Amino acid sequence: MTNLSPSDKALVPFVSVDHMMQLVHSIGVEPILIGLADYIEADFKRWELFDKTPRIASHSSEGVIELMPTSDGEVYGFKYVNGHPKNTKEGLQTVTAFGLLADVANGYPVLLSEMTLLTALRTAATSALVAKYLAPKGSTTMAMIGNGAQSEFQSLAMKAIVGIDTVRLYDTDRAATRKAARNLAGMGLKVVECDSAEASMEGAQIITTCTADKQYATILTDNMIGSGVHINAIGGDCPGKTELAPAILERSDIFVEFPPQTRVEGEIQQMAEDHPVTELWQVMSGTAKGRTSADQITLFDSVGFAIEDFSALRYVRDHIKGTKFYHDLDLLADPDDPRDLFGMLKRATPA
Amino acid sequence: MTNLSPSDKALVPFVSVDHMMQLVHSIGVEPILIGLADYIEADFKRWELFDKTPRIASHSSEGVIELMPTSDGEVYGFKYVNGHPKNTKEGLQTVTAFGLLADVANGYPVLLSEMTLLTALRTAATSALVAKYLAPKGSTTMAMIGNGAQSEFQSLAMKAIVGIDTVRLYDTDRAATRKAARNLAGMGLKVVECDSAEASMEGAQIITTCTADKQYATILTDNMIGSGVHINAIGGDCPGKTELAPAILERSDIFVEFPPQTRVEGEIQQMAEDHPVTELWQVMSGTAKGRTSADQITLFDSVGFAIEDFSALRYVRDHIKGTKFYHDLDLLADPDDPRDLFGMLKRATPA
Repeated sequence: MTNLSPSDKALVPFVSVDHMMQLVHSIGVEPILIGLADYIEADFKRWELFDKTPRIASHSSEGVIELMPTSDGEVYGFKYVNGHPKNTKEGLQTVTAFGLLADVANGYPVLLSEMTLLTALRTAATSALVAKYLAPKGSTTMAMIGNGAQSEFQSLAMKAIVGIDTVRLYDTDRAATRKAARNLAGMGLKVVECDSAEASMEGAQIITTCTADKQYATILTDNMIGSGVHINAIGGDCPGKTELAPAILERSDIFVEFPPQTRVEGEIQQMAEDHPVTELWQVMSGTAKGRTSADQITLFDSVGFAIEDFSALRYVRDHIKGTKFYHDLDLLADPDDPRDLFGMLKRATPA
Repeated sequence: MTNLSPSDKALVPFVSVDHMMQLVHSIGVEPILIGLADYIEADFKRWELFDKTPRIASHSSEGVIELMPTSDGEVYGFKYVNGHPKNTKEGLQTVTAFGLLADVANGYPVLLSEMTLLTALRTAATSALVAKYLAPKGSTTMAMIGNGAQSEFQSLAMKAIVGIDTVRLYDTDRAATRKAARNLAGMGLKVVECDSAEASMEGAQIITTCTADKQYATILTDNMIGSGVHINAIGGDCPGKTELAPAILERSDIFVEFPPQTRVEGEIQQMAEDHPVTELWQVMSGTAKGRTSADQITLFDSVGFAIEDFSALRYVRDHIKGTKFYHDLDLLADPDDPRDLFGMLKRATPA
């Protein structure tokens, strides 16, 4: 009765930012992106099993804080994530995140992890996974418009999973482009710094937009987009935040993660409520068609869905086993007798 | 650019179970219950400021996992909590919890804390706070039916905040009663172990029910309840889990935290959807009446609401300052240049 050290069940493995970086380096950036895409694809293929709910958002004038829960019936997961576009001006991240997995059978958490880095990785892995299904076969070149925190991850994921060899960078802030080019140097991609969005799209089969304003912006106008491309639209991910001109949406076949969420948060918030979209899980499980012709414009209206975070947390849980890339957190009270919480407290009285 | 230690903003103060126990002992159990009740009362009095949403529940055959978010516009908080009645049979807690506070202005977490102990404390503090408003003046005796993990906290909170001097314990499992009596020995309460629910109510002005079955149970039947008492019903807190016979509800004036949640989860799930209830925040802020006569039966249909957790986390945040009862967690990625998350990762490459 006097043993105060918590039992195994009371300790929750915690992956800090530092441990996550070490995990990424021990596996390698591209292998981890491929691994994450495999986990995400596996979960999209069993999509119907999951509890799905749109994220629970708390909006303020400065930004949004969201909880994104899901469950496959055996494991429960959620992510905490914020989105505050003004943060960069104060030297803070626009998006920070952490997440948790728990055992559905007893409700005990089994993993707590940083997810700022992990979200960047899973977002890029999801984009590349979707492009593997939708981009023209033999795509070699991506235009990367918006060269912020997500741009290098997108570029490397498209290299690792789709096989591109060239990325054409553009940002309204040239310093961001230089930063991305510097980071991507020596990583096996031909990197071209471009002076305009139009220039970045020359010869590109894949066009990725990832800009951060929380307002209706038009990054891509209709006349910029030729036939046959795949558009990977990342930046429009909350009400009032879009990147594409409606005319592009009219010309595109639109693919989404979870329609009830995308219709509120994605590019298609600009369209009628019944505007046709295809669910990606159906494409991956073979019940809906992806790209059907060479001149078709495919559009991934990406907003990020809870199942992708769930897949990423599953990946981390499976890959920290036997490593030193986590430590145990005393997060759960665990009295010898579960009804004796007060006794546990009382026995902890300092001598 | 090579400084890899996280900045202040990237570190989140974390209160472990062990630190929480030390914090409780450094302040004292009764003073902390009084302090928590003060914080909860202050937040109930500014109720209309808060974002309120029913908890987000993920139900399974074994139990439930819930997220309970709220915000006062400046601070955001949420609690993760499970409820798995079968857990005790496997030596686990029925309820475990942790919680978080974040800065609404930038979305950065400012506190992560265990909440298994803290929930036990805030639940008891809320019950006693409500009894202070609703129980007969000069109440001296509480019947405590259900002697599980919550019972000692309830007893001490009613002593500290309402001023009772006697608690009469009853549980279908006599071992639970003996455990509670042993824990409460020497803490300033007269403790009486009773052989039946009826016996426990002899001379009691306050009747607390806190049993754990996830099924419709009738712990209190109509003929057991005399006039003038205050019933503090804790155990009925999810769909299908109730403790009181409907006839008692008919005879009582019912007070609740947040009607949309209580109508689904509380005792009043047994009643019509428009059964009259009074909101406690209105009683505390003086816009609704509490107890109005000596022979009235008042009933607190307690389910636990997110704002109580928010208050408790605020209390902890304010009281760990300058103590050693937390440590900093490397939870948030914090690159020197917020757009340079990839650069942070790259610079962390092992030599």
